[in-house]
Amino acid sequence: MISIINVNGTDEVTFLNRLSERIGSVNEEVTAAVTQILRDVKARGDEAVAAYTKKFDGQLPPSFEVSRDEINDALTEADPAFVDAMLNAVANITEFHNRQKQQSFIDAKPNGVLMGQRIRGLKRVGLYVPGGTAAYPSSVLMNAIPAKIAGVEEIIMVTPPRKDGTANPDILVAAALCGVDRVFLMGGAQAVAALAYGTEMVPKVDKIVGPGNIFVATAKKLLFGEVDIDMIAGPSEILILADETAEPSYLAADLMSQAEHDKLASSILVTTSAEIAQKTKEELARQVQTLSRREIIEESLQRFGAIFVCETTDQAVELANRLAPEHLEVMMADPVSYIGKLDNAGSVFLGKYSPEPLGDYYAGPNHVLPTSGTARFFSPLSVDAFIKKSSYIYYTQEALANAKDDIILLAERERLTAHANSIRVRF
Amino acid sequence: MISIINVNGTDEVTFLNRLSERIGSVNEEVTAAVTQILRDVKARGDEAVAAYTKKFDGQLPPSFEVSRDEINDALTEADPAFVDAMLNAVANITEFHNRQKQQSFIDAKPNGVLMGQRIRGLKRVGLYVPGGTAAYPSSVLMNAIPAKIAGVEEIIMVTPPRKDGTANPDILVAAALCGVDRVFLMGGAQAVAALAYGTEMVPKVDKIVGPGNIFVATAKKLLFGEVDIDMIAGPSEILILADETAEPSYLAADLMSQAEHDKLASSILVTTSAEIAQKTKEELARQVQTLSRREIIEESLQRFGAIFVCETTDQAVELANRLAPEHLEVMMADPVSYIGKLDNAGSVFLGKYSPEPLGDYYAGPNHVLPTSGTARFFSPLSVDAFIKKSSYIYYTQEALANAKDDIILLAERERLTAHANSIRVRF
Repeated sequence: MISIINVNGTDEVTFLNRLSERIGSVNEEVTAAVTQILRDVKARGDEAVAAYTKKFDGQLPPSFEVSRDEINDALTEADPAFVDAMLNAVANITEFHNRQKQQSFIDAKPNGVLMGQRIRGLKRVGLYVPGGTAAYPSSVLMNAIPAKIAGVEEIIMVTPPRKDGTANPDILVAAALCGVDRVFLMGGAQAVAALAYGTEMVPKVDKIVGPGNIFVATAKKLLFGEVDIDMIAGPSEILILADETAEPSYLAADLMSQAEHDKLASSILVTTSAEIAQKTKEELARQVQTLSRREIIEESLQRFGAIFVCETTDQAVELANRLAPEHLEVMMADPVSYIGKLDNAGSVFLGKYSPEPLGDYYAGPNHVLPTSGTARFFSPLSVDAFIKKSSYIYYTQEALANAKDDIILLAERERLTAHANSIRVRF
Repeated sequence: MISIINVNGTDEVTFLNRLSERIGSVNEEVTAAVTQILRDVKARGDEAVAAYTKKFDGQLPPSFEVSRDEINDALTEADPAFVDAMLNAVANITEFHNRQKQQSFIDAKPNGVLMGQRIRGLKRVGLYVPGGTAAYPSSVLMNAIPAKIAGVEEIIMVTPPRKDGTANPDILVAAALCGVDRVFLMGGAQAVAALAYGTEMVPKVDKIVGPGNIFVATAKKLLFGEVDIDMIAGPSEILILADETAEPSYLAADLMSQAEHDKLASSILVTTSAEIAQKTKEELARQVQTLSRREIIEESLQRFGAIFVCETTDQAVELANRLAPEHLEVMMADPVSYIGKLDNAGSVFLGKYSPEPLGDYYAGPNHVLPTSGTARFFSPLSVDAFIKKSSYIYYTQEALANAKDDIILLAERERLTAHANSIRVRF
């Protein structure tokens, strides 16, 4: 099962190398197949979408678009306890993301000059929701709510039809609760292409977000520039910092909540206590018995899980900063004193009563986070991902007259004489 | 030379098709060559950088790193008028970008819950500055100043050595004025690779920004994910909206200030006045005689320049929004009333005395802008490009107890039992 590794030894190097190889490289066969699908959908539109849907999903849904009535029915017919829990999550997520909203600004100078930055939501955003067991309603909330707050005019969801040709009702409930405007039953690269190029049926969007399998991820990558996309999520990870005050049963449970996602998920405990390390290992072995995704958990912990024992807290923090994990739990005495020490992490969970699933579903911050060490430079999904900015400049004749010699000098220094001419012609 | 086209005719379609084909597709030979360079620099570090420098730049500079003394000397020995103009530009750019700075926030609830978003500058940023005639000091300011304001700890500039093995002194002046920390004389894909992977000599960075030729752009694209990058700039464009109150000599001068950049640059006038269209065409023919980059201007206007004549202002605005230009000048009566009508543009220049070069060098807003219609979803370079965010959550035992049933229900609904277990184990 999971190994206990002393920090700064050769085992650390071996493990970190294995971890970095976890990130998949480009698959040429998939790229070729997806390129063909994109070309086809661009050329033949809905006809191509239908052909690929038949090929990959087995049959066509009775209608590609889910009607407003069907969406509303899903909500009214859903288990009220589920709807209630979703509504609480929506309220928390909305409250947190409201604080991220940037305002347009204007700088109006006494000499009549105006300068500013205008901020608007993107016009239309596409949201991909995977089918099967990865059809997570929480993922709909985390993508659609920030888009709505940013001022996106229209959110178009695509999701593969189930075997019976219908949509997953939980996904429809989520769509209804956070204002998704239209839902289409299509998946894979063909759905991504339809969103990017637009078809008779599916409106062309400005940005495509949401998780998906390798065909979806490859399609998004290839279409980047034609539309904007969100980050391509890699396998996810948790890192827990724990001292001797931590509770091994909590540590084990939290490590496994990450490990159950995927055989490639990585769950790492970094502790200053050899005793905590040992006890957590025992707890893992005990608790895993009761969990439905035991096989995935055991394989993930075996390959990409580790318990590091450090001599000092500084060493532990340094390792966390180096690994830049997607999720970082701090189970140390005085956890809030660590906020300023942690340089690289998507989301930080402080103290004994802030387990990662609290953030996955409920507390408010986004659960779409930079994976595989990219928290060094990427950020959680936020309202900023759904806005566009323009700057504007208004100068008066007098203000330009005062600036003209500087601008002409700088333009000529760069040998751009037509730039200089554009100033000169005005005086 | 430039053609006059009536809007909504077949000529419009032909022109817009030509325009959209201007964007280069992937060059497989370049990709293969760059892939090899990246692999080499990753494996052999400085040795590979030296070998490629010798191969592509002809010889090695006496030292790869430009010393602090050399940078300071460039500043003290520069023409005082140039330094003065640069200082004024630095002040304006700094003032504008200071307004973009986002603050970390905290939401502290009465029940003891804390939630927040922490914002910091990236730790280290690499800035690529091309050599030769494209070595623009203004481009150093536009990239380095927002990085500094974001709180980036260290800015590393790379720029190819000149034939005599030294750096362009204007670039060093710009570097000195906006706080670039270190300067290395290396260019091409090998310099980009050195920044991304780090070598003994060059520190590894978190993000690489700045313009470059196809080798530089391809290297950045391939390294995206290993580091963050800025937008890949395509050929640039200007679109001018003009009514009968516009001054044809200004219109012609401004169109050419864009056209002189590149044979692929696109300069488009959209006017409601056939008379203005005709007069501007005449002015272009007249003014181009005196300009040093006449050949580039004429080719660019011939292929990717156009004067559109519209019947209504709405038609003109609609075309501007459809083309989503990098630069948009509004030479209409009451220009500020157009701010809210223009959906897609990188930077908007309002009125007769706000020509594009004012923004390129001086006014304050950034000149690194989304090109080739991507203003539909991309934004000007800003302080936001140099920050990273983390969210944090602190819950008390009581707060988690209140939330636990909802979270367990949502987790089990998604069949993630280890997620539910992580909450349950605490109660």
